[in-house]
Amino acid sequence: MVLERLKQMAAQLTGQLPTPHPLDPLSSSEIREAVEIVRKEHNDVFFNAVTLWEPRKKQMMAWLASPDTAKRPHRVADIVAIGRGSKVFDGTVDLEDKKILTWELTEGVQPLKVVRTDPQVIEQCGIVGIPPEDMHKVYCDPWTIGYDERFGSNVRLQQALMYYRPHPDDSQYTYPLDFCPIFNADTQEIIHIDIPKVRRQLNQAPPSNFHGEAIQKEIGLRTDVKPIEISQPQGVSFNLDGRTLKWQNWSVHVGFNYREGIVLSNISFNDRGNVRPIFYRMSLAEMHPHQRKHAFDLGEYGAGYMTNSLTLGCDCKGAIHYMDADFVNRVGDAQTIKNAICIHEEDAGILFKHTDFRDESCTVTRGRKLIISQIFTAANYEYCVYWMFMQDGTIQLEIKLTGILNTYALNPGESAAPWGTEVYPGVNAHNHQHLFCLRLDPNIDGPNNTIFQADAVRGDGEVGSAENYYGNAFYAKKTALKTPATAMSDYDGNTSRTWDMANTSKINPYSKKPVSYKLVSREVPPLLPKEGSLVWKRAGFARHAVHVTKYMDDQIHPAGRHVPQTSGEPSQGIPAWISEEPEANLEQEDVVSWTTPEDYPIMPAEPMTVLLRPRNFFTQNPCMDVPPSYSTTPTQMAAGKGGIKGVVDSVSRLAFDDKTKGGSNDCCGK
Amino acid sequence: MVLERLKQMAAQLTGQLPTPHPLDPLSSSEIREAVEIVRKEHNDVFFNAVTLWEPRKKQMMAWLASPDTAKRPHRVADIVAIGRGSKVFDGTVDLEDKKILTWELTEGVQPLKVVRTDPQVIEQCGIVGIPPEDMHKVYCDPWTIGYDERFGSNVRLQQALMYYRPHPDDSQYTYPLDFCPIFNADTQEIIHIDIPKVRRQLNQAPPSNFHGEAIQKEIGLRTDVKPIEISQPQGVSFNLDGRTLKWQNWSVHVGFNYREGIVLSNISFNDRGNVRPIFYRMSLAEMHPHQRKHAFDLGEYGAGYMTNSLTLGCDCKGAIHYMDADFVNRVGDAQTIKNAICIHEEDAGILFKHTDFRDESCTVTRGRKLIISQIFTAANYEYCVYWMFMQDGTIQLEIKLTGILNTYALNPGESAAPWGTEVYPGVNAHNHQHLFCLRLDPNIDGPNNTIFQADAVRGDGEVGSAENYYGNAFYAKKTALKTPATAMSDYDGNTSRTWDMANTSKINPYSKKPVSYKLVSREVPPLLPKEGSLVWKRAGFARHAVHVTKYMDDQIHPAGRHVPQTSGEPSQGIPAWISEEPEANLEQEDVVSWTTPEDYPIMPAEPMTVLLRPRNFFTQNPCMDVPPSYSTTPTQMAAGKGGIKGVVDSVSRLAFDDKTKGGSNDCCGK
Repeated sequence: MVLERLKQMAAQLTGQLPTPHPLDPLSSSEIREAVEIVRKEHNDVFFNAVTLWEPRKKQMMAWLASPDTAKRPHRVADIVAIGRGSKVFDGTVDLEDKKILTWELTEGVQPLKVVRTDPQVIEQCGIVGIPPEDMHKVYCDPWTIGYDERFGSNVRLQQALMYYRPHPDDSQYTYPLDFCPIFNADTQEIIHIDIPKVRRQLNQAPPSNFHGEAIQKEIGLRTDVKPIEISQPQGVSFNLDGRTLKWQNWSVHVGFNYREGIVLSNISFNDRGNVRPIFYRMSLAEMHPHQRKHAFDLGEYGAGYMTNSLTLGCDCKGAIHYMDADFVNRVGDAQTIKNAICIHEEDAGILFKHTDFRDESCTVTRGRKLIISQIFTAANYEYCVYWMFMQDGTIQLEIKLTGILNTYALNPGESAAPWGTEVYPGVNAHNHQHLFCLRLDPNIDGPNNTIFQADAVRGDGEVGSAENYYGNAFYAKKTALKTPATAMSDYDGNTSRTWDMANTSKINPYSKKPVSYKLVSREVPPLLPKEGSLVWKRAGFARHAVHVTKYMDDQIHPAGRHVPQTSGEPSQGIPAWISEEPEANLEQEDVVSWTTPEDYPIMPAEPMTVLLRPRNFFTQNPCMDVPPSYSTTPTQMAAGKGGIKGVVDSVSRLAFDDKTKGGSNDCCGK
Repeated sequence: MVLERLKQMAAQLTGQLPTPHPLDPLSSSEIREAVEIVRKEHNDVFFNAVTLWEPRKKQMMAWLASPDTAKRPHRVADIVAIGRGSKVFDGTVDLEDKKILTWELTEGVQPLKVVRTDPQVIEQCGIVGIPPEDMHKVYCDPWTIGYDERFGSNVRLQQALMYYRPHPDDSQYTYPLDFCPIFNADTQEIIHIDIPKVRRQLNQAPPSNFHGEAIQKEIGLRTDVKPIEISQPQGVSFNLDGRTLKWQNWSVHVGFNYREGIVLSNISFNDRGNVRPIFYRMSLAEMHPHQRKHAFDLGEYGAGYMTNSLTLGCDCKGAIHYMDADFVNRVGDAQTIKNAICIHEEDAGILFKHTDFRDESCTVTRGRKLIISQIFTAANYEYCVYWMFMQDGTIQLEIKLTGILNTYALNPGESAAPWGTEVYPGVNAHNHQHLFCLRLDPNIDGPNNTIFQADAVRGDGEVGSAENYYGNAFYAKKTALKTPATAMSDYDGNTSRTWDMANTSKINPYSKKPVSYKLVSREVPPLLPKEGSLVWKRAGFARHAVHVTKYMDDQIHPAGRHVPQTSGEPSQGIPAWISEEPEANLEQEDVVSWTTPEDYPIMPAEPMTVLLRPRNFFTQNPCMDVPPSYSTTPTQMAAGKGGIKGVVDSVSRLAFDDKTKGGSNDCCGK
């Protein structure tokens, strides 16, 4: 790594920008450079996306192993552009050779047009009770539906979910309209309006608003919430080398792109001096019903799925590090969303505690977690995505859903049950699932891994038998997922099913079992839409809780690269990759696992969580050396001597007597 | 309530102690008083427990409704005492009438005796490699086994799990011994030693220690963990009226007893001025394999299951309020565990956020949670129990398991698989389940409730049909649990099963559905020990994820009052109560639900969580009035005016640039 560091230092001394890590997102200047290169040959295109084309894994792994001698992967831009006649192009541009590598025509697509002036829309608004002079109170949220059999197989479509606002500051979700214009994205024309058989008039209920000004007026804001202050006056425990984040033995490259948001790569753990790889790459590769083809959702309102610019003290609390995100805009300029990614650490409560009841010798240690997060808005919803790292080697993904429920119109006296719930007069919230696809590329002590399904099963032998005298024997039964066709696994609550991503050529010397990471994902009911339904076809990745495929460089997007283009027949993405080679060997191969948990936004939903935990990975607890708050031994207790005070917290106080401080002799190390 | 408050104030003015709330634990002086009353008639007993005998619910509900006019329940003590000939007595004492109400003889039980001097034990130690001169290095953890068919039905038993320590400060769990002495608790004699067929010699591996001094010597403690400071300089948002805790519309009476630990009663939520009851009582009523009959585990080592005395800044961080817990000791004195219960609030991240993509008008509000917690030690394990209350009406119970795994001896070369894992040379950790029984007495807008099983099921109708055109219809199917015999319900992952505790005579005016609280408990695989096994018999409460019974005042302990006395034939506790009246009506009755989640301590376990969420309970989000960090409307964005800054956090900083403060104009309310 020495030569690499010298190059970086030289660049800094000469004022050059440091060389990007091969997985770093494209910078603003690289984005502009890519645009310039494209324009030399195609000067009449608009740009939907200019993003990092990730290096091929084989070349990347070679460079990671020997950054000073292996060939450094070139910086290449992945382009989505729109040309004359609404044609869409997919291209790649080598930024070092300064040339276009590939340039292909794809199906046409166009941004969403304003509906307020369309005569048919005005007519429908009148039918539901909105006069023409009130069209300025009509709003719409654009949604990509992509394919609808009624309009032919090659017509790109978007739909406009329609709403009304009595006042510009009123929440439109109280006033959903019952009809739905559909656009031909190529010609920018409304080609159809879906009109229901049963018409529903504009809701007459008073507005139900959530913003601070409205609440202040209606009921007043609470005055009894006392502030909590969180700070790290000696600085934070993490540091960054470019975009490579290091914290408590973890090393993670923090990437980002417009489709997946945060991408975490080259994740390793320093196990007492031995740097062990764990995951090559992990990301939230897909979501439903919010298919993440951002390029096709860039409308005149800006990016359809916006990652938020996070705010210090509001979105994020404590000692915070931000990373910006650079994107292209339509006309080829680079634009930056500041503070797109938040990195911070939090107190995680008790990491370890034990008291010997005989003499009260005791060790208590507090833990920490590191959180890499973003928030993005998808029309009415907000998704808060938290990637968390723990000192014990655990990784946790948590997704919190907030914002506003999807709403539909309801007539007075009409029942929303059983398919929905009337959450406010005239407002129906339908039952639906939110699906996420977590793409995990394991690298457990090396790239060749096997994924096992692990079930807790009862031992054979009846109660009283020799092999199961007490009748309480059970064990973890492991089933290797050997081929793509058979590696489709669902959650089974009866067996507390989990999945092990293992390296069977690395055996834990104590347990004699392969080193592995266990995937715990319990919020995975079966996909409720039935086989043959549109959701089933298009969200093929969601038919099972876990799929496993062999690693292929371009298989990143489990519903396909350009999702809206697909009818789902045949299903793109995972189902297609599986059918390409259903009998491929997945044992001790470079494999990728796709896991699909879900979330119900019927009521304010609990956060959805997926856990990755080391199993047989370490030979001992990897965080024994975190300094304890205090620790006493039996010998010290017998001698009446105090023990170790590893961390003294003199800031904690009693709630109603702030003279008593934490960490004092009265409180610890007795 | 006026007369009640005047009485309290008068008591304080005259220096009298305030009158306890009827659910308050007995104070030290009440404990001493109860002992005195008992001694007048029984002067030769030792005391195992003197605790609150909870008022009968009917009388309690009447008093809660009219504290100024209804008869105040008397303070009554529940006694467990041991008399001559090792007889055990259960009694109750009225502290106001100053007399014994009941006094009954129960089966005998005695504390555990030291094993180090028993000749048979010394002999066995010699066999496994411990010479007689090293008996001072032998330790044991006592466990109540209660019943073993080999020794007759009336003999009270305990077993001693045996360990060795090369040095007093070494962790004994590295050196489990392979034999197990069994005591007759009545006669204090070792009556038998369980000796396995295959002997296992004392482990020769070096010690594996977790305490700070050892780690410091062996590998050194980390120096890169920078402090995090958490404080509430303006005080906390909760307040206490005696033991009644009020916070963010919640009101909770915080009780405690030696068996269940924290008991939360009379839980209500102030819904815009309307104080609505939700739960009458909730507690962790039982655990397995740590049956919670503390009285029988009081040995010469002190309380078998000790709740820890928590330390400020170590166990608990921030602005902390503690409550002590008073117990009786053997000789009838009251003793206090200081700081047994911790109450504090924490920042809970984002409560709500929405951004309108059109103009970036935005509202972001941070949330809080209130945590009532305790930590107790059960031999090698520690359980951290956290009862959490959220501003949106959610209640969450989280249990974190820490301490040391149960360990068993293993010979060199012997495999621990499949029933266990070799976690260190010579150390086997068996697979087993930890079961908890959460007793919930719902009071959803009143005592008469119905408990429903709720399953997410697909709609009828095939894809393309009129009733299910898109094939994605689904709904929540509710099944009422009508009688004890049929109210045994298990978790079904396929339907994301939850349970609704509802009041069908109170209908939500918008959704038209009964107000309810939803129980979400997903960590409930079936009980792995087989039908007929000892665990199956004794932990009858665990045979199903949820049981429902009709409320009966004395049905608190789901495995029976004196657990070790039972062989499990017939099974005490829940199975017995169900069989008493299997066809009792449970619809719109005063019912109690018993839910049994589990935890696997094979590896450091993830915390186990049970959630209670309002469903159709509120007519709108109950925390809209929490002040936002900031909130802007479309009108304000158009005018370029800032919006509301409800909470200004000027303490948050950038990690690597501490000049930029949170809450500044650069950061919020743009």
